[in-house]
Amino acid sequence: MALPKRIVIHELGPREGMQIEKNPVATSEKIRLVDLLSDCVFPEIEVTSFVSPKWVPQMADAEQVVAGFKRRPGTKYTCVYLNSQGMARAVATNKLDVEGSLSVTASEVFSKKNTNRTIDETFAEAERRAEALKQMNVPTHEVSVMAAFGCNFSGDIAPEHVIGLIDRMMGVARDHDVKVELIQLADTMGWANPGSIRRMVGMVRDRWPEPRINLHLHDTRGLGLANALAAMEMGVDDFDSAVAGLGGCPYAGFKDAPGNIATEDLVHLCNEIGVETGVDLERLLDVAREAEKIVGHPLPGKVMRGGQLDSYRRAVREQAKVAS
Amino acid sequence: MALPKRIVIHELGPREGMQIEKNPVATSEKIRLVDLLSDCVFPEIEVTSFVSPKWVPQMADAEQVVAGFKRRPGTKYTCVYLNSQGMARAVATNKLDVEGSLSVTASEVFSKKNTNRTIDETFAEAERRAEALKQMNVPTHEVSVMAAFGCNFSGDIAPEHVIGLIDRMMGVARDHDVKVELIQLADTMGWANPGSIRRMVGMVRDRWPEPRINLHLHDTRGLGLANALAAMEMGVDDFDSAVAGLGGCPYAGFKDAPGNIATEDLVHLCNEIGVETGVDLERLLDVAREAEKIVGHPLPGKVMRGGQLDSYRRAVREQAKVAS
Repeated sequence: MALPKRIVIHELGPREGMQIEKNPVATSEKIRLVDLLSDCVFPEIEVTSFVSPKWVPQMADAEQVVAGFKRRPGTKYTCVYLNSQGMARAVATNKLDVEGSLSVTASEVFSKKNTNRTIDETFAEAERRAEALKQMNVPTHEVSVMAAFGCNFSGDIAPEHVIGLIDRMMGVARDHDVKVELIQLADTMGWANPGSIRRMVGMVRDRWPEPRINLHLHDTRGLGLANALAAMEMGVDDFDSAVAGLGGCPYAGFKDAPGNIATEDLVHLCNEIGVETGVDLERLLDVAREAEKIVGHPLPGKVMRGGQLDSYRRAVREQAKVAS
Repeated sequence: MALPKRIVIHELGPREGMQIEKNPVATSEKIRLVDLLSDCVFPEIEVTSFVSPKWVPQMADAEQVVAGFKRRPGTKYTCVYLNSQGMARAVATNKLDVEGSLSVTASEVFSKKNTNRTIDETFAEAERRAEALKQMNVPTHEVSVMAAFGCNFSGDIAPEHVIGLIDRMMGVARDHDVKVELIQLADTMGWANPGSIRRMVGMVRDRWPEPRINLHLHDTRGLGLANALAAMEMGVDDFDSAVAGLGGCPYAGFKDAPGNIATEDLVHLCNEIGVETGVDLERLLDVAREAEKIVGHPLPGKVMRGGQLDSYRRAVREQAKVAS
């Protein structure tokens, strides 16, 4: 299949990145990160997470972060929440593009660990969630499957199982007049490989040809960009990523593992193979370097260390001009 | 094209890794690294480099390293040298599988910087080299092109230019009765992308269908494994890599950039997509962690931090047994 002409990148750094940091990051620094990312012209930035400060103290300042950042016209500012209380907090900010998602985790063990619900309980909650979203007028067009490719606690996840979960969630969506326009497949713990990406995307596409597919990829075992390439070659044109490779999941059961695929490395891949992203790579590389300062330790992004090819190309052209 | 059933991995860590380290690594530690790698069952390990201790003091102990390591039957132990003097030193050890290579750098500027020769001078040297290799009975079956995809000093490299260089070097080989069985394409500074890999490999294969193609990939900008995947899909079954992602080139003009693709991450990719390597991944991950201790700083390999999937799969199976 031909590569997509253009992909949409959902930048998650401010949310995925901040939730896992051990040392507190100042609210002003979180706001600065969102503003810096806005200057890179992302279609979507995930600003923060409305979760219990008891469980995720790093996100206790969600309201302040939202109050502080500056909206850039043309960018959607999204957030994460896990229950109605979180959703109400997000809506109350009056500043975010709050959207709904009907989400389920493909691994029973990880579902309990990460969301404190079994898979069955998740579907029961999804019924209530769909109703609450409708009552609060929160636009809802997404079904999401976490740990869709494998799980450190349950091992490999069969694609048939994922198809079954999506099918069941599509039923919930139908019952509550939710029109699903996006199916998200999240490789939460880095189990996917280019082969499993192709199989899963193919099966989802065959069954539900209409909705777009979003891939949320983690680079836990280094296959992130190879997986993104395989997905683009299957026509996937919607990706999550985090600047500098910020992120990772606090409940995934390993420490110091690499987080999300690094946005700037994904943009570099796209630039080189001729897929548009609309993102300003040069600015983004500066932000990636700032992100390392903000969290106070090295992050796994590579182009920020290797250097952008276009800057080398420019230098070569300028030298040629001087020489001629 | 179908993936190859099996690939050959040429492990470069002891050579590429050690040449770039700022702090001296003890000879005994270099020997230990080679021996640890031997236990992982590599078909080929590049042990060291016979170069001038004036320019590369890190490699001044090449003879001692060779004297100290233990040969494992079934593994080829190779080395690098840049001139006849280095070749004579390598042969004199009586312990290495010294092989010849007719090598040229695709970028004029980088050729001067890295080898102190212009491209024309390189071809003149190749004539002398081919003759010297024959006289010393060093088996020679390889033509190699460095910086084959791009260069930080010269920008993009046209594949037609590379084809021209290979053609010219094939002429040198023919004139000196060298039968070329392997064409190496080295992405010395991380300029390749999956598209340029496919184009270049396709053009080389069309022109010279007989020799195998080896790819020497650097992960400078994070595309290393995506490039390896694209190459395997083109039928390439011969790769260079370095444990833990050791390496990088001291003359490439940037500091702290990621080095070669990490061997264990490449083996992980192969394991997951069903391509055999013969390498023991579990042992290799231990060696990757040792390599970090040996050089005294973190290295970019990912699976060593994310954890091997087979160990998680095993734990899941064992838990299931206990539960049943």
